[in-house]
Amino acid sequence: MASSSSNIEERFKINSEMESAQFKDFAKEMIDYVSNYLENIRDRRVLPSVEPGYLRPLIPETAPEKPDNWEDVVTHWHSPRFHAYFPTANSYPAIVADILSGAIACIGFSWIASPACTELEVVMLDWLGKMLDLPKEFLACSGGKGGGVIQGTASEATLVALLGAKARAISLAKQAHPEWKDSDIISKLVAYSSSQSHSSVERAGLLGGVTLKSLKPDSSNRLRGETVEQAIKEDIEAGLIPFYVVATLGTTSSCTFDNLDEIGPVCNANNVWLHVDAAYAGSAFICPEFRYLMKGIERADSFNFNPHKWLLVNFDCSAMWLKDPSWLVNAFNVDPLYLQHDQQGSAPDYRHWQIQLGRRFRSLKLWFVLRLYGIENLQTFIRKHVALAHHFESLVRKDDRFEITEEVIMGLVCFRLRGKNEISENLLKNINARGVIHLVPSKINDVYFLRLAICSRYTETADIELSWNEIKVVANEVLSQ
Amino acid sequence: MASSSSNIEERFKINSEMESAQFKDFAKEMIDYVSNYLENIRDRRVLPSVEPGYLRPLIPETAPEKPDNWEDVVTHWHSPRFHAYFPTANSYPAIVADILSGAIACIGFSWIASPACTELEVVMLDWLGKMLDLPKEFLACSGGKGGGVIQGTASEATLVALLGAKARAISLAKQAHPEWKDSDIISKLVAYSSSQSHSSVERAGLLGGVTLKSLKPDSSNRLRGETVEQAIKEDIEAGLIPFYVVATLGTTSSCTFDNLDEIGPVCNANNVWLHVDAAYAGSAFICPEFRYLMKGIERADSFNFNPHKWLLVNFDCSAMWLKDPSWLVNAFNVDPLYLQHDQQGSAPDYRHWQIQLGRRFRSLKLWFVLRLYGIENLQTFIRKHVALAHHFESLVRKDDRFEITEEVIMGLVCFRLRGKNEISENLLKNINARGVIHLVPSKINDVYFLRLAICSRYTETADIELSWNEIKVVANEVLSQ
Repeated sequence: MASSSSNIEERFKINSEMESAQFKDFAKEMIDYVSNYLENIRDRRVLPSVEPGYLRPLIPETAPEKPDNWEDVVTHWHSPRFHAYFPTANSYPAIVADILSGAIACIGFSWIASPACTELEVVMLDWLGKMLDLPKEFLACSGGKGGGVIQGTASEATLVALLGAKARAISLAKQAHPEWKDSDIISKLVAYSSSQSHSSVERAGLLGGVTLKSLKPDSSNRLRGETVEQAIKEDIEAGLIPFYVVATLGTTSSCTFDNLDEIGPVCNANNVWLHVDAAYAGSAFICPEFRYLMKGIERADSFNFNPHKWLLVNFDCSAMWLKDPSWLVNAFNVDPLYLQHDQQGSAPDYRHWQIQLGRRFRSLKLWFVLRLYGIENLQTFIRKHVALAHHFESLVRKDDRFEITEEVIMGLVCFRLRGKNEISENLLKNINARGVIHLVPSKINDVYFLRLAICSRYTETADIELSWNEIKVVANEVLSQ
Repeated sequence: MASSSSNIEERFKINSEMESAQFKDFAKEMIDYVSNYLENIRDRRVLPSVEPGYLRPLIPETAPEKPDNWEDVVTHWHSPRFHAYFPTANSYPAIVADILSGAIACIGFSWIASPACTELEVVMLDWLGKMLDLPKEFLACSGGKGGGVIQGTASEATLVALLGAKARAISLAKQAHPEWKDSDIISKLVAYSSSQSHSSVERAGLLGGVTLKSLKPDSSNRLRGETVEQAIKEDIEAGLIPFYVVATLGTTSSCTFDNLDEIGPVCNANNVWLHVDAAYAGSAFICPEFRYLMKGIERADSFNFNPHKWLLVNFDCSAMWLKDPSWLVNAFNVDPLYLQHDQQGSAPDYRHWQIQLGRRFRSLKLWFVLRLYGIENLQTFIRKHVALAHHFESLVRKDDRFEITEEVIMGLVCFRLRGKNEISENLLKNINARGVIHLVPSKINDVYFLRLAICSRYTETADIELSWNEIKVVANEVLSQ
């Protein structure tokens, strides 16, 4: 079985095409390429003109050859002409941080697996929490149970909070009714969110195996306290167990804000876990003038937003704070010998705070971005996007053929051509077919509209005017048909 | 509300410290730093000598200043003296690919969100599947339902497969018993794995809200077909519904292999979903001489291994194949208007295949690694690690004070000092306290042992001999006390 010691190196010679010297050359070429790609992204067709399956014939069936030209087959999310979905962040400091993270390549599932990976995350989430003026119960530095963690996506944060809430609800129900089985309790559990909440909330209910009820928001598309109260009351009367509410600050369809200040007391009074999903809009709370929109946050059990959307930290970096992570840590704790270490309990072992075991050193991205931009520039970045959205809004409002369908608060403008949905559907279809700019639609109460999100950190007034002109050109065509 | 168009740029000036020119300088410095870090990693103390909470006093409470010296506070996973857990991969091609991925920074949740991101993943998973000689039912190129997807971690793959299996089992039970409620069915569901399976399997049961039974492996620590058969039979007789089995190829404790060839037919005969977790050892199946260990794979419903462990692809890249992803896609499908697109159905929308919505362009790492190493060098890399493990084994076997506790098959050697557990516990404690090398322990049937994993791509015979000498020095101390 044993190999002769002397010649392992000789017998197993790896002829890698990339050792240190080549890596330096190649990586530096890639840096130039990446910089050039981003600096000139404005000039690229935002949406590629390809069909499903286009790629397979271009590359070999099994063996490696020359790379394709990526720029032609990628949707350019960072083009100032990309206005679909919400932004995904991208900045040079974050890219450099990821290079370092890739080289250290630790898997920080426990404190000992990489102390810096855990500790920097604890401190960065405190920094970020303070930037948003989060109540101290959410911060690790307050010395209580609370603290922050980096999740991959808001979907995971919603699911993780739901699973924590489920564990708490089962525990409370068993205290009151020791004879009840888990399956009986779970079948009675009810979660709630607005019908305007993100699709991942509904999906968290499916994945978590609990009933999630969709509640009707008010005429301004905001979920209100009395709606939640009424639903909880009816379900308790029907013998069910309300246990989890998701309030959204900045919905995906139209960036509207549920009334947290009303919903919080209702949840607290009924022992219902309140999770706040501010995936996109949360970044704006670093500007004091937007914090009125998170009024009532002190009533929440967990809060989440994505620096990887609107705070110049590359994906993935979804910041989540929990007032009491012990529901998660204890409910899903498995603790094999090979993962134990002497310092357990003195610092968080983040593997208990998430779905996965492994995790990358993602707090480096926060550290680099916060240091190299500073709070002030990040605030300016947010304010500029909001100003650009208002500028686009003003252009739309000057054209009587169009209407604005939702109050513009952040970097999203919802608009449509007046009249039947079909006209706006045609408008969108033709805009995206031309490929100069890219938008996605939404629909609320059967009213179809277009969403223009300010996505790129390169977006300037001239880009907005180009986008608006493009929309007008297509509108002229559509309306003349 | 509207801003004056002319002066948005003037009003919102972002004084970033890093624009294109500075990025190029900084990133290239980082490339040099990273290369230097990796090339000299052998000389760094593998485990930092810090205590929980060490970091907070070193950096400001709220505002950014100079960075700490990372090298002193990071556990160096890529040191040839790091022998804990299993390896996590790291290679220059993967780092360069991640730089590109960071710059493109698309979020490939659907085909249209970035065609190349989806299509390259489909093709790379086919390439990889062919490299392992997976049955064609798992490959997208076969034209059937099957195909591969990149998950973040093996934990997610296990959970995703469990949720797919759960959806299938509920559907089958409802066909037979239309009057049964979901909650009744779920309370009857039973999953199984060996007591030697990874802790994330148990955790998947907890997260998925189903009973997971731990089965006893045979005297060689392998889960056998008749054990599974017996458990399923008993549970069916008790009115339960067996629905999911996880077989492990290469356990974390001792890298042993469940008898897939026996377990598969039992699962198939009972309509039980068989998931194969080969997180670490799966990479070795690119070498034909190890494929006897995956005999029977054609019976599995899903298969997973982590190129980010042992195939030189940086974390995260966990490759998963499913014969029939429709159980996942349909059970957890939520389809809001803002995520729909014209090409739906012609290509996978990977958001339906995973827990999260968002996803990075991770197939670039596979593409770069497979192209720049080529299959042959990757095979050599695997074979070299195995040879190094056998070399270490031969050194241990020559010293009568020690014993090897498990057959050495891959890059893991399980060994202990003969006698009571306490002696080996002391050995490990003293080894890790000295910080020259780093190992973690495990325990099977109350026998405590040390695990030496070959982790680094820099490991050479001389490193193994240094590690062995370090172990002997500490053993001398421990045994003389």
